[in-house]
Amino acid sequence: MHRQTKDLASLRSTLESFSLGDEVYSLIRELYPICRSITGDGFRETLARIRKEISLDVHEVPSGTQVFDWTVPKEWNIRDAYVKNTHGERIIDFKRHNLHVVSYSVPVHHKMSLAELRPHLHTLADQPDWIPYRTSYYKENWGFCLSHNQLQTMCEGEYEVCIDSALKNGSLTYGEYFLPGESPAEVLISCHACHPSLCNDNLSSVAIATFLAKYLREARLRYSYRFLFIPGTIGAITWLSQNEDHVNAIHHGLVLTCVGDRGHITYKKSRRGNAEVDRAVAHVLKHSGRMYDIEDFSPYGYDERQYCSPGFNLPVGCLMRTPHGKFPEYHSSADNLELMDSASLAHSLLTCLSVFHLLENNRCYCNENPKCEPQLGRRALYRSMGGNRNEKLQETAMLWVLNQSDGEHDLLDIAERSGLVFDTIHEAAGLLLRHRLLKEVPR
Amino acid sequence: MHRQTKDLASLRSTLESFSLGDEVYSLIRELYPICRSITGDGFRETLARIRKEISLDVHEVPSGTQVFDWTVPKEWNIRDAYVKNTHGERIIDFKRHNLHVVSYSVPVHHKMSLAELRPHLHTLADQPDWIPYRTSYYKENWGFCLSHNQLQTMCEGEYEVCIDSALKNGSLTYGEYFLPGESPAEVLISCHACHPSLCNDNLSSVAIATFLAKYLREARLRYSYRFLFIPGTIGAITWLSQNEDHVNAIHHGLVLTCVGDRGHITYKKSRRGNAEVDRAVAHVLKHSGRMYDIEDFSPYGYDERQYCSPGFNLPVGCLMRTPHGKFPEYHSSADNLELMDSASLAHSLLTCLSVFHLLENNRCYCNENPKCEPQLGRRALYRSMGGNRNEKLQETAMLWVLNQSDGEHDLLDIAERSGLVFDTIHEAAGLLLRHRLLKEVPR
Amino acid sequence: MHRQTKDLASLRSTLESFSLGDEVYSLIRELYPICRSITGDGFRETLARIRKEISLDVHEVPSGTQVFDWTVPKEWNIRDAYVKNTHGERIIDFKRHNLHVVSYSVPVHHKMSLAELRPHLHTLADQPDWIPYRTSYYKENWGFCLSHNQLQTMCEGEYEVCIDSALKNGSLTYGEYFLPGESPAEVLISCHACHPSLCNDNLSSVAIATFLAKYLREARLRYSYRFLFIPGTIGAITWLSQNEDHVNAIHHGLVLTCVGDRGHITYKKSRRGNAEVDRAVAHVLKHSGRMYDIEDFSPYGYDERQYCSPGFNLPVGCLMRTPHGKFPEYHSSADNLELMDSASLAHSLLTCLSVFHLLENNRCYCNENPKCEPQLGRRALYRSMGGNRNEKLQETAMLWVLNQSDGEHDLLDIAERSGLVFDTIHEAAGLLLRHRLLKEVPR
Repeated sequence: MHRQTKDLASLRSTLESFSLGDEVYSLIRELYPICRSITGDGFRETLARIRKEISLDVHEVPSGTQVFDWTVPKEWNIRDAYVKNTHGERIIDFKRHNLHVVSYSVPVHHKMSLAELRPHLHTLADQPDWIPYRTSYYKENWGFCLSHNQLQTMCEGEYEVCIDSALKNGSLTYGEYFLPGESPAEVLISCHACHPSLCNDNLSSVAIATFLAKYLREARLRYSYRFLFIPGTIGAITWLSQNEDHVNAIHHGLVLTCVGDRGHITYKKSRRGNAEVDRAVAHVLKHSGRMYDIEDFSPYGYDERQYCSPGFNLPVGCLMRTPHGKFPEYHSSADNLELMDSASLAHSLLTCLSVFHLLENNRCYCNENPKCEPQLGRRALYRSMGGNRNEKLQETAMLWVLNQSDGEHDLLDIAERSGLVFDTIHEAAGLLLRHRLLKEVPR
Repeated sequence: MHRQTKDLASLRSTLESFSLGDEVYSLIRELYPICRSITGDGFRETLARIRKEISLDVHEVPSGTQVFDWTVPKEWNIRDAYVKNTHGERIIDFKRHNLHVVSYSVPVHHKMSLAELRPHLHTLADQPDWIPYRTSYYKENWGFCLSHNQLQTMCEGEYEVCIDSALKNGSLTYGEYFLPGESPAEVLISCHACHPSLCNDNLSSVAIATFLAKYLREARLRYSYRFLFIPGTIGAITWLSQNEDHVNAIHHGLVLTCVGDRGHITYKKSRRGNAEVDRAVAHVLKHSGRMYDIEDFSPYGYDERQYCSPGFNLPVGCLMRTPHGKFPEYHSSADNLELMDSASLAHSLLTCLSVFHLLENNRCYCNENPKCEPQLGRRALYRSMGGNRNEKLQETAMLWVLNQSDGEHDLLDIAERSGLVFDTIHEAAGLLLRHRLLKEVPR
Repeated sequence: MHRQTKDLASLRSTLESFSLGDEVYSLIRELYPICRSITGDGFRETLARIRKEISLDVHEVPSGTQVFDWTVPKEWNIRDAYVKNTHGERIIDFKRHNLHVVSYSVPVHHKMSLAELRPHLHTLADQPDWIPYRTSYYKENWGFCLSHNQLQTMCEGEYEVCIDSALKNGSLTYGEYFLPGESPAEVLISCHACHPSLCNDNLSSVAIATFLAKYLREARLRYSYRFLFIPGTIGAITWLSQNEDHVNAIHHGLVLTCVGDRGHITYKKSRRGNAEVDRAVAHVLKHSGRMYDIEDFSPYGYDERQYCSPGFNLPVGCLMRTPHGKFPEYHSSADNLELMDSASLAHSLLTCLSVFHLLENNRCYCNENPKCEPQLGRRALYRSMGGNRNEKLQETAMLWVLNQSDGEHDLLDIAERSGLVFDTIHEAAGLLLRHRLLKEVPR
């Protein structure tokens, strides 16, 4: 057991040499077949698999519990569902693809004409080979999803329609993993885990959050880290409702979603727009040498909607690769294992670690020799004559840290003003700190 | 009598179907022949015509009244003026065009040589067919204006020069129309009405202000509206001097001028630069689908100079089409009825109404369910499955209003941050208000 | 003696007609041969020459004096230095060029092989004809600098190496010239004068500072001016250490360096970034009709590093032409008299005077008639009819000054907002002040 022996920088370098992406991909592949919804056994089975990696707490919140303006819904479970043609053939079969059933469909077992069935059939005319993903959580209804091509082949006649589901009082399930650091101040990592066989949205984030937790456990941490594996919307609302007095501990947060496709990273800023996490992600992306996008906050998207509601206004942004609505496979059977890319999964995970590394080390200092520069030369911190490029950079970084460390600017501010990368500034601060030229200022 | 039965939105739609521009144009045509100046019977006659449309109060301020650093001048009236050649022919005749006489010319009746007369003759060498407009309000003088072509034909000889004017103690006249709304907070609409036969500058604004007043009278109004028909500069100074204690009631204001030509709209911001009226006009223009210009404040131009003097610093901008100095006909006989365009007049008037509509409805709310989103679905405010483009837009707008309504952001702020047009945000707020999800916050 | 009889504007015009640049150039030529270092007789000789122009105070600070984190070093003097070949020929001779010896070289007199000598020889491989400039102030060492071409010709054999220098307790010398103005508030002009035969860095600034002081002495001054001729780094630290309680008197400051080459002017802003001196220089450069660069503050460069250290954070920027590192001759024998350009020297000096002129006149006023415009016409400040371009500009400037003079905006603010050049705004303010329409507001 080597808990709390590595810092994040060394952890990052270790992981870079790993076949990180393959590990994440394998977990996605295992979770893919499970039929999840916002409640029910599929969600529990998913958490059980994650528990093999990290010692998750599993919470059950009873149906009917009031959570702010919402009520925890009945629990939904499904055993089987099909549409049979006149020959008794299952032409639509839940066992072949769990997207075939509209999530939260109430039980039904009837014979009916195509005309009666038709309003309950959902397709994507634009993508005739794909099965859409549909839900009806808060309005009792039932339905089937199928490819548009298949719909075209269905002829008049009597169909046997069966959905062997149960919608009963039970509970909403969510997973929580808390990793204590030196400080009670927390970093929140939240992902929704309620989608059935859909990969980018959102098994990619479920798997990355799992491995982030697993790796961070190995590191020496300043912040505490809280991971939430929750059903979308109702899960975030439930957690916030049950932890209302605790949210002030959240100093930084990321909602993770759609982090496994081949597109570049997109970061959506928190409602505050200039929270430390917003600036940290922007800095990491700017110096990543890769394409990226940063979007302003908007009140639609994922659970940042709840964390950033005006009564909480938490500093929580949303890290994605290609955002929902910008990849055609979104919410369809084409959001499958083929859409996942091991290298992208590894890059998403390492980007998160880089952000956490920055947050962990973004401290604020006071120059202990604020009047004129201290004499770096007699401390062997200054080239006497000449010096290579790296030494010059280190020297420049020390001068920036000394000049800006007036208790008003943290290291990220200094990195931004100087144009230098955070790690260079952080190393320079470390050197100065060891020579007692800086003192940390509590914020 | 249907006073206070329509809101501004329905009023705007009614007016859009009207032959609005023709009505405004007709009033300009009726007012065009009158010889106005900053005082005198021409100004009174103009107000009398406007009184047929709206029940204007006419104020008379005696000559010699001290108004801040200025003194109300003597009253000027003119009956006739001409220059006769040796054959007794009226070669310059005030009765043919009232621009022929320099406004505020003192009486004169003399015979004189061309050499003596010449310093009193004003022409536009660049525009040889046009008669310039000249005044000499604060320095006793006399003169004639004529086309440069005509001047070229005048030969040596004795001329009979007659200006049958009177410059005597009397009064300065102005018109004021006050339309009370629910609140004593006022919107000021000010135009100068002292120019003789000149259309864009400024009968266009006089006519538009008249019809704005007439139409607003039909509407349910939150703000009170005050319309001023005043002589330029001295009129604004006189009104401010006599209403010094009242100006705090002015929450928003527009000076109107040059609003009838075919050019696009130009808005000059108030001295504050970010007053609500500045943001409101900018929003309306941005979403108008037409070209427009927004200029920073400058202390030259029209009566915004006085309203925005540092001792008042009122939130008053200036709405124009082509600004003075940017159309060659400015202050010449070519600023005539032909320069006026019915469609432009209608567009200017409707733009004012759109601005007032925005100001009337730009309220600030608090989300009554600030922690997490309220459940829009059970209030039938959320699409269950699918939804058309308009419903999605409405939903997006509701989410923005809910997210931003923390008592700090008014609806215009929310429209600006979301990029949505104000009406969409306003309708969404209306919907949420009816569902008791918002509460108005007094500002 | 005509002390305090001219204002800076008339001084500037007088100087523009002078052969200013030639005068400055002559002083550089006289100072060029002297072997200066951060202490020693070369520095004293330099100050003695400057004293022929201005009555400089010469300060001596004993070796060993603690100045903040630093200690005043021993005094260094040198009489002779050479490297002789086996034939007894001085192949490197300090008397031919004082850059041949590494500044602060300790005494040495030895015979040695080329292999032993080689680590003590410094060249510029990229510029094989030039002798580099090297120092070793804070680490006892010795060395010679020579052209790379010469090094190539040196063959194996025994060399006689002699540096006849002295490194002993003595003192650090600096010059200070204080020109009292009406106010105790000071403008600081600082230049380092410790470089041996190097022109742009920094005899150009030494000479310009000398003539600035000489000319300002002739002028009526609001601010007091303090000129420092100091050794780089240690001199600024020493002065700040010995004048710690006095620095609050410094309201504006410029470090001058590299002001004699043919490049355009570069201004590096103070750490504050928006100090009055930063805005003043930016305004002067913007309206200069010449190319220029403005750089953000960085904590490397010249003595602004010390003045802008966080414990002082003085409003001191750095005025240069081509910055160090951007001209290849920097710190080499090629930074010689040929690099100097009389016209550039004159332009640098006049730019400083323009900045001082702006600072001297950048006052803040209150409009005495803040409600509406005052009647400029009856004060003959307004064109009655017509008016030429200059009169219109003057009128526009008066309106800007009246409109913005609410005690919050100084004349530079008004120049910036109006887009007019400071002198026009300043003249307009003068005119209004004479008509008692403005009152100065102390800041």
